[in-house]
Amino acid sequence: MALVVQKYGGTSVANAERIRAVAERIRARRAAGDDVVAVVSAMGDTTDDLLALAHQITETPNERELDILLSTGEAVSMTLMAMALHALGVEAVSLTGAQAGLRTDSVHQRARILAIEPERIRREVAAGRVVIVSGFQGITEELEVTTLGRGTSDLTAVALAAVLDARCERYTDVDGVYTADPRIEPNARKLKEVSYEEMLELASRGARVMQPRAVEIGLVYNVPIYVASSFTEGDGTLIHGGVTMESFNRVRGIPHDMDVAKITLRNVPDRPGIAAHVFEPLAEAHVSVDVIVQNASAEGSTDLTFTVSKGDLGRALPIVEQIAREIDAGEVATDDQVAKVSIVGTGIQSAPGFAARMFRCLADAGINIEMVSTSEIRITCIVSAERVEDAVRALHTAFELEHADPAELA
Amino acid sequence: MALVVQKYGGTSVANAERIRAVAERIRARRAAGDDVVAVVSAMGDTTDDLLALAHQITETPNERELDILLSTGEAVSMTLMAMALHALGVEAVSLTGAQAGLRTDSVHQRARILAIEPERIRREVAAGRVVIVSGFQGITEELEVTTLGRGTSDLTAVALAAVLDARCERYTDVDGVYTADPRIEPNARKLKEVSYEEMLELASRGARVMQPRAVEIGLVYNVPIYVASSFTEGDGTLIHGGVTMESFNRVRGIPHDMDVAKITLRNVPDRPGIAAHVFEPLAEAHVSVDVIVQNASAEGSTDLTFTVSKGDLGRALPIVEQIAREIDAGEVATDDQVAKVSIVGTGIQSAPGFAARMFRCLADAGINIEMVSTSEIRITCIVSAERVEDAVRALHTAFELEHADPAELA
Repeated sequence: MALVVQKYGGTSVANAERIRAVAERIRARRAAGDDVVAVVSAMGDTTDDLLALAHQITETPNERELDILLSTGEAVSMTLMAMALHALGVEAVSLTGAQAGLRTDSVHQRARILAIEPERIRREVAAGRVVIVSGFQGITEELEVTTLGRGTSDLTAVALAAVLDARCERYTDVDGVYTADPRIEPNARKLKEVSYEEMLELASRGARVMQPRAVEIGLVYNVPIYVASSFTEGDGTLIHGGVTMESFNRVRGIPHDMDVAKITLRNVPDRPGIAAHVFEPLAEAHVSVDVIVQNASAEGSTDLTFTVSKGDLGRALPIVEQIAREIDAGEVATDDQVAKVSIVGTGIQSAPGFAARMFRCLADAGINIEMVSTSEIRITCIVSAERVEDAVRALHTAFELEHADPAELA
Repeated sequence: MALVVQKYGGTSVANAERIRAVAERIRARRAAGDDVVAVVSAMGDTTDDLLALAHQITETPNERELDILLSTGEAVSMTLMAMALHALGVEAVSLTGAQAGLRTDSVHQRARILAIEPERIRREVAAGRVVIVSGFQGITEELEVTTLGRGTSDLTAVALAAVLDARCERYTDVDGVYTADPRIEPNARKLKEVSYEEMLELASRGARVMQPRAVEIGLVYNVPIYVASSFTEGDGTLIHGGVTMESFNRVRGIPHDMDVAKITLRNVPDRPGIAAHVFEPLAEAHVSVDVIVQNASAEGSTDLTFTVSKGDLGRALPIVEQIAREIDAGEVATDDQVAKVSIVGTGIQSAPGFAARMFRCLADAGINIEMVSTSEIRITCIVSAERVEDAVRALHTAFELEHADPAELA
């Protein structure tokens, strides 16, 4: 008999029928002998609907009020889930963030978890009850309701699993982690297991598989996270820390991202402090900068190129143009017809040959590389948006990802 | 500069436009120099919609879970109201029942207020903020969310006014207390003031003017309650304890109620304990019994007649039929084509002549009286449903209610 923390996303609880289906899954799991703590998101598009309501009132809703407003979404879904379990004869109780002891700092809309006081959850589990916990929300010492940021019910689940020393299972409409987007590469294969680090690189911006902060908490507290579909029965993907020898030094997946825009600042004076001067104002405006490329030149000036999300481009551009005037740089050019494609795998950065094979593959496919960036376990190329799907397919074939890892043949 | 607790009902906050209109009223009140604590109900039909959602899941939703579910309605409306005030440049903060310090017992769905700890509200008011409080809900010592019963945002407002030593104002789509239903009696007149006791009798079952428990709290703590429309500007009605000499010993209003069904138990043995035997099982089934008439007869048996709401008739009937068999009574007859009409006024019961004038008036109009019941300040007749509107008009004229009280001519 084990304790498992399950997480069900918004699509899994979108209506009464789906809530009843999830309740039946939980009932079966209880019957098999496990104790279950289930974290739920708000039903379907509830959070967006509540945000729209707030924006009918004012364009700039107060973040403290917004937190109370948005927290109601999970209060609705969690109580309905408890009722659905009661209807199946399963003892269950739902707990708000406050009741579940999820203490946060007081930064509304993006609070950080300070501590989880799990006494109430432990008491309910000991009494034989399934515990339903509202994701996404917590409470401050002053009883103020906080939310942890969009998509953070995953974080609630992993943090609870860490505190309760439980396994974490994340159920959604995505049935696991794939070597590439199956809609683009028909030979994409579901991975049986990935490391936390690989997961962070594979599930890049826009990935619906798992919220990155949740994976980071999993990494820090070494919580195994099983990702699977709540709609089908098949196997999912286990995210964990023990990378097997066989999957080391291999390309594990080809993530790509279309939500990319490129900004180039020409003829930047080549002197100390220039990068800080450019990126500090962008950080203050909450513009996330991704790939950055700068080449020092012999003539004392250089081109500085970086990428932002398409949604941030409009906000970033006037800031960058202002900076260009201040540092006496040249023109500012933008291009939103670009995309990112990467190869990801633990150890590939230190092993020779992977970058060369990636570049050769793209060259053979006639795809021009505009920028390159690397991390410990990832090599990323910026290419034109219209060629990125070709790039995914070419790389998937070149690195033989249609074949299972030896470790996964068991 | 006074402190006022205002209450806005569901129709007053039914959508963004109305919420903005209420915010503007509050802004104007602040600008006039008063401190405002505003209690809000859930938007429009939200509570019914949430109940319907729960019933999609199960026919018998757990009351603890239901309380959390229903409490979200006020959390939504109160945060939107705070945002609307912010948009007008007014400092405001919304507080849940828990944050407002509204402590209750743990009887879910119909909790009683144990205490209000007003420190947080006082602190926010002292800081110059308008405080928006969610009506209808509280919290137990164990941090369990409770609700006080349907329509109890009025109760929250009056209880807060009592604790804060403030005046209470109740704004809704009804603009005051009338001598009779204006849809039936075109000469019905709005009363400038009524006593708590008169209000309790005038606002009988189904009256949307003021929740009876709230009026009772007003009576006990002597909180003046001003009832007015949130849609129009005119004067409302003040409910208070100081009945003026001029309005004493006068009929003040003609309330009526169509939601009445009559149950008659024939040939009831006339022995001690029979009434308890009949009404205890009904109380256990939460059937509220209203007018009760029993006449002892010479033959050792009698007919026992009482009224219930139409909605309770189906539940009451099998219980009464079972009782009839147990006590060896005769047949059980029902009639749901009846209605109640009353005359209400402090002192009329002890003063001679009012009952006689009422009966004469109904006789002159050819309206048969089926049952009679009296309280300290009320005389009620059960008549046929199809004649009740005629009865209201005849009584309104007979007691000259189209003329203002001397006290109201000021």
